Amino acid sequence: MTNKIFFLMVIAGVPLSVIGSLMHWSQTLMFIIYCLTIVSLAAYMGRATESLAVIAGPRIGGLLNATFGNAVELIISIFALKEGLIGIVLASLTGSVLGNLLLVAGLSFFIGGIKYKRQHFNVHDARHNSGLLMFAVIVAFVIPEVFSMEMTETKSFNLSVGISIILIILYLAALFFKLVTHRGVYQRGEESTEEHEEPEWSKGKSIGILALATVAVAYVSESLVHTFETVGETFGWSELFIGIIIVAIVGNAAEHASAVIMAFKDKMDVAVEIAVGSTLQIALFVAPLLVLISIFFPVNMSLIFTLPELIAMGSAVLLTVVIANDGETNWFEGMTLLAAYVIMGIGFYML
Amino acid sequence: MTNKIFFLMVIAGVPLSVIGSLMHWSQTLMFIIYCLTIVSLAAYMGRATESLAVIAGPRIGGLLNATFGNAVELIISIFALKEGLIGIVLASLTGSVLGNLLLVAGLSFFIGGIKYKRQHFNVHDARHNSGLLMFAVIVAFVIPEVFSMEMTETKSFNLSVGISIILIILYLAALFFKLVTHRGVYQRGEESTEEHEEPEWSKGKSIGILALATVAVAYVSESLVHTFETVGETFGWSELFIGIIIVAIVGNAAEHASAVIMAFKDKMDVAVEIAVGSTLQIALFVAPLLVLISIFFPVNMSLIFTLPELIAMGSAVLLTVVIANDGETNWFEGMTLLAAYVIMGIGFYML
Amino acid sequence: MTNKIFFLMVIAGVPLSVIGSLMHWSQTLMFIIYCLTIVSLAAYMGRATESLAVIAGPRIGGLLNATFGNAVELIISIFALKEGLIGIVLASLTGSVLGNLLLVAGLSFFIGGIKYKRQHFNVHDARHNSGLLMFAVIVAFVIPEVFSMEMTETKSFNLSVGISIILIILYLAALFFKLVTHRGVYQRGEESTEEHEEPEWSKGKSIGILALATVAVAYVSESLVHTFETVGETFGWSELFIGIIIVAIVGNAAEHASAVIMAFKDKMDVAVEIAVGSTLQIALFVAPLLVLISIFFPVNMSLIFTLPELIAMGSAVLLTVVIANDGETNWFEGMTLLAAYVIMGIGFYML
Repeated sequence: MTNKIFFLMVIAGVPLSVIGSLMHWSQTLMFIIYCLTIVSLAAYMGRATESLAVIAGPRIGGLLNATFGNAVELIISIFALKEGLIGIVLASLTGSVLGNLLLVAGLSFFIGGIKYKRQHFNVHDARHNSGLLMFAVIVAFVIPEVFSMEMTETKSFNLSVGISIILIILYLAALFFKLVTHRGVYQRGEESTEEHEEPEWSKGKSIGILALATVAVAYVSESLVHTFETVGETFGWSELFIGIIIVAIVGNAAEHASAVIMAFKDKMDVAVEIAVGSTLQIALFVAPLLVLISIFFPVNMSLIFTLPELIAMGSAVLLTVVIANDGETNWFEGMTLLAAYVIMGIGFYML
Repeated sequence: MTNKIFFLMVIAGVPLSVIGSLMHWSQTLMFIIYCLTIVSLAAYMGRATESLAVIAGPRIGGLLNATFGNAVELIISIFALKEGLIGIVLASLTGSVLGNLLLVAGLSFFIGGIKYKRQHFNVHDARHNSGLLMFAVIVAFVIPEVFSMEMTETKSFNLSVGISIILIILYLAALFFKLVTHRGVYQRGEESTEEHEEPEWSKGKSIGILALATVAVAYVSESLVHTFETVGETFGWSELFIGIIIVAIVGNAAEHASAVIMAFKDKMDVAVEIAVGSTLQIALFVAPLLVLISIFFPVNMSLIFTLPELIAMGSAVLLTVVIANDGETNWFEGMTLLAAYVIMGIGFYML
Repeated sequence: MTNKIFFLMVIAGVPLSVIGSLMHWSQTLMFIIYCLTIVSLAAYMGRATESLAVIAGPRIGGLLNATFGNAVELIISIFALKEGLIGIVLASLTGSVLGNLLLVAGLSFFIGGIKYKRQHFNVHDARHNSGLLMFAVIVAFVIPEVFSMEMTETKSFNLSVGISIILIILYLAALFFKLVTHRGVYQRGEESTEEHEEPEWSKGKSIGILALATVAVAYVSESLVHTFETVGETFGWSELFIGIIIVAIVGNAAEHASAVIMAFKDKMDVAVEIAVGSTLQIALFVAPLLVLISIFFPVNMSLIFTLPELIAMGSAVLLTVVIANDGETNWFEGMTLLAAYVIMGIGFYML
């Protein structure tokens, strides 16, 4: 059903994106068309990656998921970076972290918890992820913020580059840990057996769709970025709000949906993996990669968030770590995370 | 014994409060009389609420305890709010959070721990409470502080109102979770059986005493608030210190005592419930309610604490979460919490 | 082997320290000689303390280790304090905390984890230590920083003195808890039996060596402190960097080595005890002791770190608490801690 809708959206959205931009339709209308087209293309990229992952087996599959999982967001951000819209890029990174940790995990816990009284997920994974969340946000994002207060801009960009390299190394080490040295070490026995999945598409078809969708996303993203200014003025939205709420939701919509569906099927391990795994990918891989890419662009991007962004991410991480610590969830824990998201959403809207 | 003392204090305190204020006794003397009278009236309110809770059964009883538990503090704060003493109200909220988390829990752990080598309380409750503490202090109190730095006063009050509404909704949801959907789900089996308590007073007597004591507390609180200025000048105490140490202790003295007694009887579940439950009530219910009430007063109260207040509460929450995380206590953990309280006390005294 | 090297280093280092200073050798050369001499003398002090601890039995032994464990750092700091180099003293305290929590624990987890897939240490000790770490850094170091923002210098020093006294009392209470009231209460059974160690040296020899080495360390430390200015200028190192990286590593090198060796032997309890125990000693004993000692020196030292120092320590503590919480380690957790150390190192170098 959803697959059909996404099919229609792609079939209609891509040509409309081209036609509309040629015929100079209203920016607001184009903004909506671009957003919907990207959401549906992202769904195709997700399915293609999933098929390839099943074909390639768990190791390479894990690597594929880890690399392409946030491809859409990465593409949008690169085009925003090229335009020098650093504020929007940092805001969309913040938005992804908050969206995944609070909105996606919150909705999953809440909706799953309405059906099941108590839901469980792997405690070892939760703790492994907690450590990485603390590292990424409380160490790697906080340090440049505080240390660069008295630095020149060049120095503070150099510090960001150094930290970014370390983040990417640690991200690769985390993949190596999870997929090679400690694969299955912390798994509960029963789950490993039921993984005889069939891929949805063949290898050739998957690669073809992935390539086509990526190109299409890139094209539409570039156009999308150019509508931000007008849309912001029209609705009275700040750069911050567009980045944190709009870009983050468009870039992650498909993932969000599947996490909630998994929670509803009581597969909390998968739901948490999507929410927290995606956060870690953003913080440990996408964010530092964008810093490094910005070396080649006219405007360099330091890893320095605004204070509200940093505090919001820090609070979200501490809250998640404490709530997820026991490997158990219920509807109220979900509601607590959602309440935190709403509070931050109001805050960013009013800024 | 204590009951007799409180009886004498009420019998003497209420008339003395009236006579003294008519005859213009010294403000310092009146301040002491008011404080002692409120402490003893609070004890009566506590006993009446307890009796009603036993009669009404656990669900409605839980609700009653949750609503009337901090009634005294709420009443004093409303009168202070009416006088525009926002600094004192915020300080007394801070003082209640610190007093409950550090002083009450600390004393309970310490005194209980001198008698018993290791004491235990329900880990599930501890974790549920930890999540809520983090939400209330680290998210709901921190966000307005940071976000309103660059806001106009009106905007920052609007943000506070929005956050307050969410806090109260979450507080009601927490009650619903605890008393309805997940009642007894996380309980250790043995305890549920021993709850065939007899109420101390009949329903009619309880309601009568509760009503009378509430009116008396209201009367005395209004007078108490008017002595703050003179007392502050006489002893060289700042508004902050009066709010954080004096008002907080007067408003919570009765509760403090019963938590320690419970710890001494090795009923750590109850002791922790009083200390942490009361903190949550202050943070999730009393504080946001005062913000909403202040809409109708000449001076609006935003949910914006001073930086020392916020940092002290944040530190206290993080310390408590880490210490209470394992559901086990000993005298040294109590001493650590008390040491934190003393450090903060010295700090606020010297500010 | 290492013992022989240290023997040669002492035999050569002490006379060279005297000769070089008399003959006015280059300050940079002297700086290197002083550092190496102190490292080797510290190894002797460690062995002498260890022998005395074995002879005296676990209680007095624990006390000895606790008191002399950071003697070298204390001595260097006192001489720096005497010279009024407060910035370097605070930086070296910061460096010891970061070095022990991130570098030593990180290396131990990493190197131990390469040999063993999963390593375990006592969860109860980990939680006890977590509580104390939070207390020391998040409460006792954060409070004076924030509260003294609007205080005069005298007031803020008085606050520091008050907090220091409480820290030392809590440190003594922690020793009393660990060595007297709760000795062995949280121990896993097997370990207590294997402790029939033989002391390396006799009582007389140990005391003699300890006394001689302490005097020598004191002499060399005084000289070392005088080279800081020239060395800083020569290499372009800030006071902060010298304190945080150089002094901290020189003062703790011997300990660092033995923690890693213990991890390699899968004795994680001992490795963690060295790393975290040493941090607690610095924060709860050495730092406040230096504040109190500074009363008798011309320049008083408040317990007020620079913001980068405080944030770095706070981040390190939160990260360690989350990572060590489950009593289990692996190479990736070690690498995470090391990555945090490198990030902070780069930051302090660039400041």
